[in-house]
Amino acid sequence: MSDLLAAVTTAARATPVSGIISAVNHGRDKPGLIPLWAGEGDLPTPRIIAEAAAKALYDGATFYTHQRGIPPLREALAAYYERQYGRPFDPDTFFLAGSGMQAIQIAIALSVGAGGEILVPTPAWPNVTGAASVIGATAVPVAMREEGGRWHLAVEDLAAAITPATRAIFLNSPANPTGWTADLATLQAILELARARGLWIIADEIYARFVWTGAPRAPSFLDIAEPDEKILYVNTFSKNWAMTGWRMGWLHAPLALKQTIENLIQYSTSGVAEFMQRAGVVALEESEWFVKRSIERARRGREVVSAAFAGNNRVTFAPPDGAFYAFFRVDGLGSSREAAFRLIDEALVGTAPGTAFGGIGEGFVRICFLRSEDSLTQAMQRITRFLDN
Amino acid sequence: MSDLLAAVTTAARATPVSGIISAVNHGRDKPGLIPLWAGEGDLPTPRIIAEAAAKALYDGATFYTHQRGIPPLREALAAYYERQYGRPFDPDTFFLAGSGMQAIQIAIALSVGAGGEILVPTPAWPNVTGAASVIGATAVPVAMREEGGRWHLAVEDLAAAITPATRAIFLNSPANPTGWTADLATLQAILELARARGLWIIADEIYARFVWTGAPRAPSFLDIAEPDEKILYVNTFSKNWAMTGWRMGWLHAPLALKQTIENLIQYSTSGVAEFMQRAGVVALEESEWFVKRSIERARRGREVVSAAFAGNNRVTFAPPDGAFYAFFRVDGLGSSREAAFRLIDEALVGTAPGTAFGGIGEGFVRICFLRSEDSLTQAMQRITRFLDN
Repeated sequence: MSDLLAAVTTAARATPVSGIISAVNHGRDKPGLIPLWAGEGDLPTPRIIAEAAAKALYDGATFYTHQRGIPPLREALAAYYERQYGRPFDPDTFFLAGSGMQAIQIAIALSVGAGGEILVPTPAWPNVTGAASVIGATAVPVAMREEGGRWHLAVEDLAAAITPATRAIFLNSPANPTGWTADLATLQAILELARARGLWIIADEIYARFVWTGAPRAPSFLDIAEPDEKILYVNTFSKNWAMTGWRMGWLHAPLALKQTIENLIQYSTSGVAEFMQRAGVVALEESEWFVKRSIERARRGREVVSAAFAGNNRVTFAPPDGAFYAFFRVDGLGSSREAAFRLIDEALVGTAPGTAFGGIGEGFVRICFLRSEDSLTQAMQRITRFLDN
Repeated sequence: MSDLLAAVTTAARATPVSGIISAVNHGRDKPGLIPLWAGEGDLPTPRIIAEAAAKALYDGATFYTHQRGIPPLREALAAYYERQYGRPFDPDTFFLAGSGMQAIQIAIALSVGAGGEILVPTPAWPNVTGAASVIGATAVPVAMREEGGRWHLAVEDLAAAITPATRAIFLNSPANPTGWTADLATLQAILELARARGLWIIADEIYARFVWTGAPRAPSFLDIAEPDEKILYVNTFSKNWAMTGWRMGWLHAPLALKQTIENLIQYSTSGVAEFMQRAGVVALEESEWFVKRSIERARRGREVVSAAFAGNNRVTFAPPDGAFYAFFRVDGLGSSREAAFRLIDEALVGTAPGTAFGGIGEGFVRICFLRSEDSLTQAMQRITRFLDN
């Protein structure tokens, strides 16, 4: 280790390399590769949203603005929530952030803090663990149970992991990478556990619209919790509106935290570009057609993957209940990392190793199926042909 | 305090309200007010930069991208530094961040960490203290010395403030709000102090181009330090290119920290929008004319303020050596906060209270003079007429 690296803080040095980014960095420039490694589709942001940002740029919306978000966008979020959850919301309970990632970082700073522990059902998107690490908090993995490629969280496992240092439960449902989608009874049990033990819940429901159980959206803590519960909802424009590259997300949180959250935003990124926020209004108010289109693409993508893996005796895979990932086990390709990198190098399909989502993901590989049917079909042919050889 | 607020972490709860934002929130909607409270000019981002972002948006640069910044932008930064400092720089020593603020937050996480102390010459932009607070670090103010409205940092005061917990020195030169601009001998003394005591330096040189001593730019640690010193340079597109609202900044740091900084970016905001980064290339490579124009506006603004305050026996003011703020004391308007708020309410000029920059700023008020001569002349007439009554 260089002297300089030795001189940085232990927390910074301990912050792990993202296994997803490692895969992307490994294969980024491979000609002809079909990239299924990241949590994004193949469509750019809808033109109507891009145009709103461009217009705002030309109109000079390039100055400092409201730290919590411009009022029209917070109002549009409240209206969107009312459409989704069937009751009114206060615009002052919404806080714009420079990505869903930043919303999570703020939520962990609010609820966990240095020295605290947060329970994370695992396999899990690795950035929650990373964000905890940055501020000296500890993400404690709670192993989900798996059978035949189908994962679920047992609430008793969550309860058993609570220690005196536990401050919060991170709940991502529908879940990345497993697709596990909690039913209302499970959410209710988790809420009661959190209440009984005085814990915060950080609810990551960013895939709520992508659900394959027949329901119009996934069950949410918003369906069962009181308005002033210790729940911090983190969300993003990334997935619904193909805005992964924009870095714009939000928190929905109790009104009592308004000034504290504004302060945390002020001292981390000092808000989100107004020209992006104005485009966010157009996403929420005029781009529902695109969300529906994306959901249909993902639904079809799930079918393509399921058909490709059906009867393949080297692959263990169960079609997920939610989100837009296939998380599958492959026999005979070596470790997760070897499997993912061989699929990148030899099948020219960008995949993420299961171990990027925690040690429990060993043996698994993740692909994203939010993609055109043609491209995804080609990718699945590459994968299955490679596995057949 | 509500139960919910009582349940958040001590660090989050202790994070202070920005005194600048308080002033802005107080006066934001006052009709006819001339806003001089924030660190930004009155010109929007140049059209050529906005057009580059719009074009990139239409071209679909809306996907996840390089966490450290796209190569063309890091190369453009290296070339810009070569033009400014007269020697080559490695593009891999530049790291894009979602604002200069985030660059500071990352720098503090790298060098100070929870429980550590960072020395901050004060009066100082309050966000450094805020960013330290968020991660459980402590910003220790080091009082600058003042005479007749002219401030300077005595290196012996810095040395005297070092404790076993000290990890870093934050040095902002030219300084906000005081305009103090360290000469090379002072920078050398600070560098030697940091070397001798094993401290990091976080160098905030964002106002380097705005200097009124006759020099083409302010002296920099880059003029005297070795490439692999424990120095983290934080910077931003905000000031030079009127991009305050964009939230785009960068770090320049030793190559050995490359992966660690990439990880910290990954787990805080996961990078900067590619369409903004492409516009950043145009800022660096094709918009030097605008920087020169802004410098000229600020130079003229400094003269307008100096002329308006000359001979005013209620005002203590010394024209600053650098940056674009007038930091002045007013007699007989009550506390700093009262003075700033009365200037907002009664003179219709947006000002920031001196105490926003630390207790040592009591009695002072800050205004930004990067503004059209007409508007600034009008603002100064309002202030001086109000003070004459």
